[in-house]
Amino acid sequence: MDTTKKTIILFSGDFDKVMAAFIIANGAAAMGDDVTIFFTFWGLNTLRKKQSPKGGSRSMLQAMFGKMMPKGTQRLGLSKMNFAGLGAPLMRRVMRQQRAMSLEELVASAREQGVKFVACTLSMDILGFTENDIIDGVEFAGVASYLGEADEANVNLFI
Amino acid sequence: MDTTKKTIILFSGDFDKVMAAFIIANGAAAMGDDVTIFFTFWGLNTLRKKQSPKGGSRSMLQAMFGKMMPKGTQRLGLSKMNFAGLGAPLMRRVMRQQRAMSLEELVASAREQGVKFVACTLSMDILGFTENDIIDGVEFAGVASYLGEADEANVNLFI
Amino acid sequence: MDTTKKTIILFSGDFDKVMAAFIIANGAAAMGDDVTIFFTFWGLNTLRKKQSPKGGSRSMLQAMFGKMMPKGTQRLGLSKMNFAGLGAPLMRRVMRQQRAMSLEELVASAREQGVKFVACTLSMDILGFTENDIIDGVEFAGVASYLGEADEANVNLFI
Repeated sequence: MDTTKKTIILFSGDFDKVMAAFIIANGAAAMGDDVTIFFTFWGLNTLRKKQSPKGGSRSMLQAMFGKMMPKGTQRLGLSKMNFAGLGAPLMRRVMRQQRAMSLEELVASAREQGVKFVACTLSMDILGFTENDIIDGVEFAGVASYLGEADEANVNLFI
Repeated sequence: MDTTKKTIILFSGDFDKVMAAFIIANGAAAMGDDVTIFFTFWGLNTLRKKQSPKGGSRSMLQAMFGKMMPKGTQRLGLSKMNFAGLGAPLMRRVMRQQRAMSLEELVASAREQGVKFVACTLSMDILGFTENDIIDGVEFAGVASYLGEADEANVNLFI
Repeated sequence: MDTTKKTIILFSGDFDKVMAAFIIANGAAAMGDDVTIFFTFWGLNTLRKKQSPKGGSRSMLQAMFGKMMPKGTQRLGLSKMNFAGLGAPLMRRVMRQQRAMSLEELVASAREQGVKFVACTLSMDILGFTENDIIDGVEFAGVASYLGEADEANVNLFI
């Protein structure tokens, strides 16, 4: 068993939980671990391009969901004390005051450290996302791929 | 250590999280793994009969909680974008359009594949559920039973 | 690999999820396992003193967040059916009727059984908590410490 592998299922699209996932992922990568983050359901919002391409084969319902869900890390809200969207910007401001890394810096750092980003294809189908909606450098796979990696890892979290 | 065992604590009763739990459980079972789902707190709503028997020794408060919580998979709401209950039916419709398995099909498939369903007895006591409130084919056990199984598993998730 | 160690990241500050974390921690400790709970983000509210010391180097924003977040276990709300704060007291009442251990008893029992409490220093910085805001008997550490312990554990949950 490879004790230096970690997997995280990032189900949540809440700013605070996405932060937690990337703090753990960066920490583990810094310690030399292989880390894979599987983005499913709301977690996929983290990976959305700011400008998604028009068209495609979205149904009206999927287009509606797509319109209402945040595109990319800049738009994520807090899971608690969101204050109609004000909570996350306030927390970002505190983080700048504390000179903590921003979420965008954590994402960039995770990439640089070789953390693997995988988007769950089943969730993409349900939410009507195509590969064009997703930022570059992301792999696409299903639950079997996740389970294969989790079997090789010694820490597997669902966030 | 048995690397082919997985456990999931299903704490959430949100439609989307219950979906995620059953997608993982079905995937693992399809790969030949032993899978146990422990239903606790709101997750127990997944296992409630549509028509719960009257009477029993429920307190007034328990009866009140019981009335307000969803009975069975058909009544679960989304954790995000629930739109006063409309979100889950909308997501179900998209899933049908995508020919994805419904939650009820995932539950049936999990059973057919031998996924073990365990209802947490402590949570049942707190929420005032009796074994009569729960659908057939479910085992009843406490945290010691969970820990015993988790010790034998190589992937343990809390959803 | 030490199969008798468990770690829990307690990210949530919801009464019901904190309950779940402590039920698992107590169960594992009773079975002879080493258990560490890492309190991060909202989970830190569980560890706050009722009366926090004035002053310190909090920014205005941090002071505002601090004012609005619950101080200690008695103030935590439910993740679902919170009813503007009434849900947790109602659930507490049901728990007393059922003679279930209260959250405070679970916390005390966890301490007696040697469960290790660790407060995440990065989250404390962001939320503006100092060591003086936190109850006694808690260690302070970062993500590297968590990962070190998780590598030695056979069950690692994110709650």
